[in-house]
Amino acid sequence: MCRWLAYFGDPIRPEELLYEPRRSLIEQSRSSGPDAGIANADGFGLGWYGLSDAPGLFRSSLPAWGDQNLRELSAQIRSPLFLAHVRAASAGMPVQQTNCHPFKHGKWLFVHNGYIADWPHLRRELTMAVDPDLYPYIEGSTDSEVMFYLALTYGLEDDPLGALERMAGCIEAAGYRHGTEHPLQMTLGLSDGEQVIAVRYASGPEVNTLFVSTSVHDIRLLLPAEERFRHFSDEARVVVSEPLIDLPGLWHEVPPSTALIVRDGPDSEDLPFVPRMP
Amino acid sequence: MCRWLAYFGDPIRPEELLYEPRRSLIEQSRSSGPDAGIANADGFGLGWYGLSDAPGLFRSSLPAWGDQNLRELSAQIRSPLFLAHVRAASAGMPVQQTNCHPFKHGKWLFVHNGYIADWPHLRRELTMAVDPDLYPYIEGSTDSEVMFYLALTYGLEDDPLGALERMAGCIEAAGYRHGTEHPLQMTLGLSDGEQVIAVRYASGPEVNTLFVSTSVHDIRLLLPAEERFRHFSDEARVVVSEPLIDLPGLWHEVPPSTALIVRDGPDSEDLPFVPRMP
Amino acid sequence: MCRWLAYFGDPIRPEELLYEPRRSLIEQSRSSGPDAGIANADGFGLGWYGLSDAPGLFRSSLPAWGDQNLRELSAQIRSPLFLAHVRAASAGMPVQQTNCHPFKHGKWLFVHNGYIADWPHLRRELTMAVDPDLYPYIEGSTDSEVMFYLALTYGLEDDPLGALERMAGCIEAAGYRHGTEHPLQMTLGLSDGEQVIAVRYASGPEVNTLFVSTSVHDIRLLLPAEERFRHFSDEARVVVSEPLIDLPGLWHEVPPSTALIVRDGPDSEDLPFVPRMP
Amino acid sequence: MCRWLAYFGDPIRPEELLYEPRRSLIEQSRSSGPDAGIANADGFGLGWYGLSDAPGLFRSSLPAWGDQNLRELSAQIRSPLFLAHVRAASAGMPVQQTNCHPFKHGKWLFVHNGYIADWPHLRRELTMAVDPDLYPYIEGSTDSEVMFYLALTYGLEDDPLGALERMAGCIEAAGYRHGTEHPLQMTLGLSDGEQVIAVRYASGPEVNTLFVSTSVHDIRLLLPAEERFRHFSDEARVVVSEPLIDLPGLWHEVPPSTALIVRDGPDSEDLPFVPRMP
Repeated sequence: MCRWLAYFGDPIRPEELLYEPRRSLIEQSRSSGPDAGIANADGFGLGWYGLSDAPGLFRSSLPAWGDQNLRELSAQIRSPLFLAHVRAASAGMPVQQTNCHPFKHGKWLFVHNGYIADWPHLRRELTMAVDPDLYPYIEGSTDSEVMFYLALTYGLEDDPLGALERMAGCIEAAGYRHGTEHPLQMTLGLSDGEQVIAVRYASGPEVNTLFVSTSVHDIRLLLPAEERFRHFSDEARVVVSEPLIDLPGLWHEVPPSTALIVRDGPDSEDLPFVPRMP
Repeated sequence: MCRWLAYFGDPIRPEELLYEPRRSLIEQSRSSGPDAGIANADGFGLGWYGLSDAPGLFRSSLPAWGDQNLRELSAQIRSPLFLAHVRAASAGMPVQQTNCHPFKHGKWLFVHNGYIADWPHLRRELTMAVDPDLYPYIEGSTDSEVMFYLALTYGLEDDPLGALERMAGCIEAAGYRHGTEHPLQMTLGLSDGEQVIAVRYASGPEVNTLFVSTSVHDIRLLLPAEERFRHFSDEARVVVSEPLIDLPGLWHEVPPSTALIVRDGPDSEDLPFVPRMP
Repeated sequence: MCRWLAYFGDPIRPEELLYEPRRSLIEQSRSSGPDAGIANADGFGLGWYGLSDAPGLFRSSLPAWGDQNLRELSAQIRSPLFLAHVRAASAGMPVQQTNCHPFKHGKWLFVHNGYIADWPHLRRELTMAVDPDLYPYIEGSTDSEVMFYLALTYGLEDDPLGALERMAGCIEAAGYRHGTEHPLQMTLGLSDGEQVIAVRYASGPEVNTLFVSTSVHDIRLLLPAEERFRHFSDEARVVVSEPLIDLPGLWHEVPPSTALIVRDGPDSEDLPFVPRMP
Repeated sequence: MCRWLAYFGDPIRPEELLYEPRRSLIEQSRSSGPDAGIANADGFGLGWYGLSDAPGLFRSSLPAWGDQNLRELSAQIRSPLFLAHVRAASAGMPVQQTNCHPFKHGKWLFVHNGYIADWPHLRRELTMAVDPDLYPYIEGSTDSEVMFYLALTYGLEDDPLGALERMAGCIEAAGYRHGTEHPLQMTLGLSDGEQVIAVRYASGPEVNTLFVSTSVHDIRLLLPAEERFRHFSDEARVVVSEPLIDLPGLWHEVPPSTALIVRDGPDSEDLPFVPRMP
């Protein structure tokens, strides 16, 4: 199981969320705690928006906690919107940079926690469903990357939620044709630099978790002392696959089959997420 | 341009050919000499036959010359048949272990020096031509790996040369359809543990080089002093993409459009290589 | 905390102990189980005796479980004596190949689980205590490597146990001078190709664990079905920092302040281990 | 032989000097051209001043040209002062991140092209000459890193040039005692964020090259079209171990035994560099 977070708000140094909280993403990557899962040590990535329209991307196939470059980089940049991911590779899936999240295409970043059931058997059909003009950009061998390119194929640029619902529908249809009971398990984090889109969905009853900070006040609790009292705009939010620290009321659990949109101006929206056929 | 070698003969330690000769494969990888090409520093691989039917494989995305593990391994094993490769990645092609040669499937090993012209545009069509049952084994993103799986698709197990000719024919046909003038450039090295098959072919007039040692006597010249006088069976041969050391008469240049087969018993054969439609 | 194993007996493929048992060293490296420690994902190493007097060595700074080369190598070699190690780096200690165990010098291999307390402050003094002729061989920055070179300095070649006791004495003396309460925590595994020497010792009451298989019969229980009924000589033993699988009577816990010697002929010996001043 | 560059001036994206010029540092790293040297493929590093007083540092043991992270990072940051380095490791020197330049301590960055002759024999003595309080910060095994810590030991913070002269004097004295004819070969690049200090010196007649751009006008020639006409302050300079592109008058060769200081305000100074005993 992978873990990820997304930050949207006033510019901060990513290290403040990656390293500082008592149970930061980096700490989580090293030790899976009492729930005794496996370590998220098969690579990591940080994608951030800053200087230009295109986001910056830093990915490595090493465990995040030992990577000096991530420490340096996340202390040297300030960003109002970034996504970070720590990977636990599925059995037999190569540990390599091109399989690390976030995946990037144009102004878009994409992170995923979950899987396409029976991927080895569905890989060819789903990869073929990717727009031939986008196909050459596929670099790795993961289900996650193909999910991203399917979403781009189905119109992510113009209709993000619709494209994600068609991506999920396409995958479920293929899975059911192959007799898979529950084809899809996912929490997704995406951004185009303007907004964070987070989705929680699974074909079956078991759905990976997704949480969002309940208020700007809560974000301060996640930050080191010296940052706590800086001004944060009211839209600032942190979205995480697992809580970073346990404080009553800090995290709101996003319901299954829900898409969350965090952007400037209006409050973050919860919308129903319903896979549909492309 | 990549470089590779294949050895067939009495068991030796691979280090004897990888490190010892004055212009060993490893030395060649670091400095491209007066012809001032680029370094072959985008990974390497060693595949060898030994204990079991399935060959052993050691690949890394680091430059070969600095890799302590390759030094150790190539000194600790003895093998009667091995292939080694040093890679220079085409522009934009990820430097990762799954893109390093040899590629391995079952008892087969495959190395390649060359390219499929206009690969980004042909990649999808050619990858789709791979047998759906073999498709899940494709791990990387190189033209070379797809060439290997196309050969397997077209019957490498039962009719190696025919399968390679059909692979080449399939690629040229696709290339010509896309308006590519010279779709294919290749020297290939393959083995199933019984024989070494080497092919030199290009669609155009410029053909990458391929050489084979002219006699068992010559192999001794490639080895360090202490090994020179060991007995070698008369079939022993070294096949290389570029000469390891320059000694008059040591190397026989394999003609273009030729397949060379090195195996026990008969002398190594030169056969015409003619791409054909699958 | 690192984990390691040593095998002495009839030649087997290392994969049989590294991958096969339900709780193999590789599995242990990925998930630390209910005791909720951290993953041993900061590199690994395999050292084995085979072709030549000098052992072979394969080390990588990646997590062991995802390393295809280790899988291949440990399936392709047969060895009567090998040591394997999975690392969890101490905070701030670089994750790099030269910090991975086993360490190798001449015919010797060395693995360690533990630490020298207050290493940053003791590093200079202890490194200076290494024989100036051996000093140039130090490649990494770990306490473990310096422990090995101190043992070599104090006569490991001629009097292994005495040298290890003087190494421990030298470290404790330096630690006490610096006001460290418990300077040394270690289980050690060493070999010269003839024997396995394992030591369990700590300056304080808490001592890392060390276990040895109680009989050749037990080794069969560690092996996959097809291997179980091969002949094993009565001296065959497996030494581990933590049990690989839990079977009553399979493992004998080596007492603290004890050195264990496994070699041909006599039964393995338990000897008292008493640090002494060089 | 390594290669490096330093930039001082108005904030630019490092990619403009690392990738754009026809013979950029990255291109130089891959192919050593007609002079047929070896590739600088044993790692690289980029150190830059920006957000905080402490510089940012990105180092990798992979060849620079294939590193996607360096491409991304050097396009996403803007910096008024940065140093970049591509490494060709001396024989037997481990290829690892901690051996890559720049080295960083506090606000200082340090790059080096050259060597301490007979390093294996001098390593211990020179490492011991490092201030015991600084010793724990030494992470790698290179002569370059020890040169940096010797300079810090001899007062780099307060008297940079004097400290560098004492560092050189200390090394030459040790070398001569060991009977080395020409102990030291170096071009150095250092910065504390305020200034770039570059030194060209060798004990013998052969001295590695060092060049500096002759005017702000020349810097525009190094930049891509769209950047050429931005305003650059008159103090802007590029210092390089080898010219990036060949244009008459673009590069001024720094004489041997010379230290160059580039900072705001006054023109860059050439000062004599004379090793002296600490």
